[in-house]
Amino acid sequence: MFDVKKEVEGIVEFIRDYYEKNHLKGVVIGISGGKDSGVVAALFSKALGKENVVGVTMPCHTPDSCRDDAKLVAEKYGFELINVDLTAAFDAFKEDFSKIGSVDPANLKNSDINLKPRLRMATNYYVAAYYSALKGGTYLVAGTSNKSELFVGYFTKGGDSTYDIGVLNDFNVEEVIRIGEYLEVPEKVLYKTPNDDLSSMTDEDKLGVKYSEIAAYMNGENVEDKARERIEKLHAGAAHKFHIPVYRRCA
Amino acid sequence: MFDVKKEVEGIVEFIRDYYEKNHLKGVVIGISGGKDSGVVAALFSKALGKENVVGVTMPCHTPDSCRDDAKLVAEKYGFELINVDLTAAFDAFKEDFSKIGSVDPANLKNSDINLKPRLRMATNYYVAAYYSALKGGTYLVAGTSNKSELFVGYFTKGGDSTYDIGVLNDFNVEEVIRIGEYLEVPEKVLYKTPNDDLSSMTDEDKLGVKYSEIAAYMNGENVEDKARERIEKLHAGAAHKFHIPVYRRCA
Repeated sequence: MFDVKKEVEGIVEFIRDYYEKNHLKGVVIGISGGKDSGVVAALFSKALGKENVVGVTMPCHTPDSCRDDAKLVAEKYGFELINVDLTAAFDAFKEDFSKIGSVDPANLKNSDINLKPRLRMATNYYVAAYYSALKGGTYLVAGTSNKSELFVGYFTKGGDSTYDIGVLNDFNVEEVIRIGEYLEVPEKVLYKTPNDDLSSMTDEDKLGVKYSEIAAYMNGENVEDKARERIEKLHAGAAHKFHIPVYRRCA
Repeated sequence: MFDVKKEVEGIVEFIRDYYEKNHLKGVVIGISGGKDSGVVAALFSKALGKENVVGVTMPCHTPDSCRDDAKLVAEKYGFELINVDLTAAFDAFKEDFSKIGSVDPANLKNSDINLKPRLRMATNYYVAAYYSALKGGTYLVAGTSNKSELFVGYFTKGGDSTYDIGVLNDFNVEEVIRIGEYLEVPEKVLYKTPNDDLSSMTDEDKLGVKYSEIAAYMNGENVEDKARERIEKLHAGAAHKFHIPVYRRCA
């Protein structure tokens, strides 16, 4: 049985223990304005105190208004929110790349989609190293992956899947929302339809299956054949993101 | 006993098997001009054929001459070598970041050092997705990590440690050189003193211990106290790069 109070206390203790044992100071969280990063920010603010939390918004060819929901979260919990607009870096990268010769933009669709989360990962770590130097103590990068996304491989290798500490990895989307309700994450953030800001589609459109169906499947409940097949296909197709093949010597 | 012929055959078979089973096409390898990427390029050229190998040089505030050794490798094995100069992207990123306010450059030393391998990782994947679209078959990103570097954690999380397939992970530096000799990697590349191109120090200077000592330690041989202590400290300090702490639910 999912006991939201017990889990929140467990997470807070888990964070505090790890920080104490490893003599760490703060955390950097990329704040998208969606529920996962909102809930992670709420949890770390509770565990470490708002003064040790740095949120980062990282627009990239996105209007300024997209940061409004991130600001709601930062104001609610009182932590510092900085903005690193990656538009110029993204464009400069594409310009650098274009020098390899004649490139058909149609062949760059997947390249571009996944470049953004990788630049955001690099930014989170850049900010964390900067704050570690500035504040004289180690800042970690927090992950915002939840169990549902992980199960179907809905993340970018070297992007949103690269972080130093994860707290939502064992909770499905519905449970993340329950945690968010308990911690009073702003409703606009918590109940927003998730989209990846990469492809202008919602997560569920892109996955071809509903999060509620993924949760039901993971819980061993019955789901429609079509959904089950899709989930199993996604899960199998994601195996390469978890198990990197490595050659082992003969002797 | 290390049997170089047997290991090379083993690696080639390992690569071919994985590619056949997963219906993959090609590989992207970041070519630094050092031995690890040279040996990896030699192995993949042998396993997949030079026509399915793409090498990438990624200078970043580095003179053009730094690409000469990478060109030696590409010419030796006949694969395509493209150049993505990341200087403009790196500078644009720093400019984007500077807008957070007054930043003392002294506090950006570690940020800058690790940004480069992360941009290179992102570039490898950008190139791989592009070639996958261009050639109509999946290109993987090859890792160039060796056992010695891995043991002491000499890599950047989300940088050179993020890849799709690894072939040198189980060989120490000396064995990598033996494999390189067997595959006739150009001597200038194979015997170059390794440095990270990030901090203008050699790897061994930066590590504070010699690769030969790390190999001896890993082989259970005697090493001087000072070296042993340093190796054990590095190894323990690297644990967080391998084991990401993740909260597990109560029930």
